[in-house]
Amino acid sequence: MTFKYNNVYINSTSTITGPYEANGPLGKYYDKSYDDLYFGEKNFEEAEVKLLKESIFLSLSKINKRIDDIDLFISGDLTNQITSSSFCAKDLKIPYLGIFSACASSVEGLILASNMVEAKQINSCICSVSSHNNVAERQFRYPVEYGGPKPKTTTFTTTGGVSAIVSNKKSKIKIESSTIGTVNDKGIKNVYLMGGVMAISFIDTLMKHLKDLNRDPSYYDLILSGDLGLYGKEIVKEYMKKIYKINLKNYNDTACMIYNLKKQPVYSGGSGPACAPLVTYSYIFDLMKRKKLKRVLLIATGSLHSSTSANEKRTIPSIAHAISLEAI
Amino acid sequence: MTFKYNNVYINSTSTITGPYEANGPLGKYYDKSYDDLYFGEKNFEEAEVKLLKESIFLSLSKINKRIDDIDLFISGDLTNQITSSSFCAKDLKIPYLGIFSACASSVEGLILASNMVEAKQINSCICSVSSHNNVAERQFRYPVEYGGPKPKTTTFTTTGGVSAIVSNKKSKIKIESSTIGTVNDKGIKNVYLMGGVMAISFIDTLMKHLKDLNRDPSYYDLILSGDLGLYGKEIVKEYMKKIYKINLKNYNDTACMIYNLKKQPVYSGGSGPACAPLVTYSYIFDLMKRKKLKRVLLIATGSLHSSTSANEKRTIPSIAHAISLEAI
Repeated sequence: MTFKYNNVYINSTSTITGPYEANGPLGKYYDKSYDDLYFGEKNFEEAEVKLLKESIFLSLSKINKRIDDIDLFISGDLTNQITSSSFCAKDLKIPYLGIFSACASSVEGLILASNMVEAKQINSCICSVSSHNNVAERQFRYPVEYGGPKPKTTTFTTTGGVSAIVSNKKSKIKIESSTIGTVNDKGIKNVYLMGGVMAISFIDTLMKHLKDLNRDPSYYDLILSGDLGLYGKEIVKEYMKKIYKINLKNYNDTACMIYNLKKQPVYSGGSGPACAPLVTYSYIFDLMKRKKLKRVLLIATGSLHSSTSANEKRTIPSIAHAISLEAI
Repeated sequence: MTFKYNNVYINSTSTITGPYEANGPLGKYYDKSYDDLYFGEKNFEEAEVKLLKESIFLSLSKINKRIDDIDLFISGDLTNQITSSSFCAKDLKIPYLGIFSACASSVEGLILASNMVEAKQINSCICSVSSHNNVAERQFRYPVEYGGPKPKTTTFTTTGGVSAIVSNKKSKIKIESSTIGTVNDKGIKNVYLMGGVMAISFIDTLMKHLKDLNRDPSYYDLILSGDLGLYGKEIVKEYMKKIYKINLKNYNDTACMIYNLKKQPVYSGGSGPACAPLVTYSYIFDLMKRKKLKRVLLIATGSLHSSTSANEKRTIPSIAHAISLEAI
């Protein structure tokens, strides 16, 4: 399902991170980073809410807007019942829609906002996502204290609060089109192989997006997946070459960009809903605003399992949503 | 945030339930009910997926459609990471957006679908929700086996898979307008008092909807909340009388309608995302199609906590979304 837009822009973004992201290669591009994973809060869950809320007010302040200038808040995150988003929403006091596409939530939010802005149903929307390494660790995996070794295909949940304000007011970043993805499941049950699980959804959505708009991969200066990690990225490149005879040259994966995979203890790269927009809204938008990149296709990928489904040995479905961004 | 629609209709619905709902006063209105809570599946979680999937294909078969005639699937549920919806989506192979407003998810889905249909961005959408009593019991509360008594303000999660097909093709049920709600939090921490938590959001969204459209409550033949339960319903009536001097006569609550509260062991009534649409798409739509009711405002309410947030003693936020339905 592909949509084209004529009047949708990103007016402001904000990126707030934890220490691992600050120490990564893109550290200087973030608006703000914290040293400590509690951010002065009582527990990690409240720390994630704080991060998200701070990113919202920072994105507003950059364009001298107040929260009640905005029509709608759309947000999603990985916590059970997306409590980070909902607990943040209670302090905003503007209409709110909760969404969930796991680590593809950022793009789901942008698509919904773009559709409503394009149709003039709303004037403006804040689209946010968050993730917090320790919140995800204790919800999905072994307790962090346990310290058991993980396989190298594991990814490391990023800590970040990320927001984008979308409206019909012209700006340097245009949202040009989008594609809603379909759920795929190739029968993988290994929760430490997220890249393998999600690669197929990335490829599926990429090919549908290109077909729907009659475009070649070379139409884009950069195609970004977020987040497949080192192994998922290789699977994509190999699969595209073997099955579609396409050599994806203008392709990168945000999981591999956010950390220094050789030096930081992050296994095969970053993950979590915050990862793809952290990289895109900071480093990539900087390149776009300096006209080093004109057309960027961001395809965010999400793994749709829960700890319950994993314990029940059910296979892991995945999804990917695409958004086409243009520097103007 | 209120939207008006000129060309959005509900073409087909389906309601599939478990045994408690079948034994309730509306039992004869449902399309299908199961005696056993496993529905032939290995575990309750897979049973919920089965229920949801069956409701989708039943809603399609009623209008002789196939799944690939439909542009988009929007679904939400209470399970961690909304796995019921996502695991169902993997067998549909059409574009999918996951949503979460807890027990208000059904109306969030209808609003998103209506906006896109009205703007001609999509032609048709299946909007589904599900809940399963035992899935919710083991995720949110004490294990069912434990058998500890609960306070009488508790609600009982309905077991149901419910779907509606929304498109611009004229039918007997028109979606006339909608209102996206705002998150409220009055500081309640008691997870056994959902009606108390959510009543304020119901009232907030009701008043905003009426104000935005310059309507009086009497504009509607029936205003439905879903699901506040016996105590939440009383709170609403009292609050409306005392604060707004409004005597809500044309008002009922789906939590109080789905079960026989005097005979069934359901405490103060039904809950779960399936409850409000189960009642609406079966009994209420029957009345509307027989012209006993013309204008119905359904305001679905959701409590936005998780077991983690409850264990951390954080207060419970809530939300309510409204959809105005017209028999034509």
